[in-house]
Amino acid sequence: MGDQGTDDRRAVVLVSGGLDSATALAVAKADGFACHALSFDYTQRHAAELDAATEIAARLGAVEHRIYPLDLSLFTGSALTGVVDVPKDRSEDEMAGGIPVTYVPCRNLIFLTIAAGWAETLGAGDLYIGVNAVDYSGYPDCRPEFIQSFEETLNLATKRGVEAASGGEMGIRLHTPLIDLTKAEIIRLGTEHGVDYARTVSCYDPSPDGLACGRCDSCQIRRKGFLDAGVEDPTRYAERVGDAT
Amino acid sequence: MGDQGTDDRRAVVLVSGGLDSATALAVAKADGFACHALSFDYTQRHAAELDAATEIAARLGAVEHRIYPLDLSLFTGSALTGVVDVPKDRSEDEMAGGIPVTYVPCRNLIFLTIAAGWAETLGAGDLYIGVNAVDYSGYPDCRPEFIQSFEETLNLATKRGVEAASGGEMGIRLHTPLIDLTKAEIIRLGTEHGVDYARTVSCYDPSPDGLACGRCDSCQIRRKGFLDAGVEDPTRYAERVGDAT
Repeated sequence: MGDQGTDDRRAVVLVSGGLDSATALAVAKADGFACHALSFDYTQRHAAELDAATEIAARLGAVEHRIYPLDLSLFTGSALTGVVDVPKDRSEDEMAGGIPVTYVPCRNLIFLTIAAGWAETLGAGDLYIGVNAVDYSGYPDCRPEFIQSFEETLNLATKRGVEAASGGEMGIRLHTPLIDLTKAEIIRLGTEHGVDYARTVSCYDPSPDGLACGRCDSCQIRRKGFLDAGVEDPTRYAERVGDAT
Repeated sequence: MGDQGTDDRRAVVLVSGGLDSATALAVAKADGFACHALSFDYTQRHAAELDAATEIAARLGAVEHRIYPLDLSLFTGSALTGVVDVPKDRSEDEMAGGIPVTYVPCRNLIFLTIAAGWAETLGAGDLYIGVNAVDYSGYPDCRPEFIQSFEETLNLATKRGVEAASGGEMGIRLHTPLIDLTKAEIIRLGTEHGVDYARTVSCYDPSPDGLACGRCDSCQIRRKGFLDAGVEDPTRYAERVGDAT
């Protein structure tokens, strides 16, 4: 393939600034990869995520961190891009009830596709994404069947994939180390690997000074994860909602 | 799905300004769709393509035409993004010999993914792309096996796909009306549907005033297509290369 031997140890890791992707980065590093971290700037409401991503990438020893500018203004109608209000205080049943308004069409697919293009350019055959199908809150592009199908597509779509297939190998591997874990298990795993979760941002609707709302789906799942894991929750909340429950 | 009945007649069509995608747009229109044309501005060498795309979309009756800004600077090393020289005067054997330097990692995949996100936002379930596997010049992401795999991925990745699957239907359909056609057959098809090929740009390396080089793979395949189709070639070439052969 013209790659040098060392290239096989490179991985592109999607790092959003959140809890899951920080854990995925720590796992990729522990797996022995030189990690190239990738974040997306997509007119999201909270740039605090990107600052967190930069700091997480540096602290967890990524070789480099790139922020890719992505215009998602074509895709109106989702809470994460600022058009619909973020739902708050939903029960677990409500959170489990279908695809939430925070769904952005093809978001993970676009992220993974650009990551794959960068990986091919770097001579990397491994991609890490911190998707999770247990506490996945209804996103279709966090499910194992999506990941498996897209890995097949990538190996048909790329020069690296086609050339590896001719030698009976898989050119591009999609790693989803968190996909079967509960939030508590993710938090324990990351804690073992030295992730400082105080630096991660999960809230869909943080205050201007970066405090978590504590009430959106993401905050609720995160809070419960720390409780279940028996790990102290380092999140800075805007209200002391946890104390009341 | 919450879609109105009329939504089923909308399609997103990838329009590059080239011969193939203009033909695909004409076919989509003939198939009865209200066509939403999508082009990408990705620091390509020749902005003439985008001007052509705008004119083609208007002439072929697209409902709207959007130009999506896409930063492909992560993906260095391809002739189409300006780093490697475009190969010229290659024989048919050379053109058939593997993946050319004009390959951009994941390009069609990124285009189709963003098109799919826009389609879902519009309530459209149909995407058209003018890929071609006969004169495809070695791009892995123009092959039927890639298209079929990605259609499956899209229907697993999207809210529209998942919701349609629960009703036993396919939410997103990828149309590749040119995939099995020779360049000559494409030109005859488009001519029947009123495509004015004088407005289309195929050259990988046009002159500053928009004349085709006549010598890159794309020019050679196009020229031969008009000859084989028995249709007068309206292309404006920088040199009268055709007269010498």
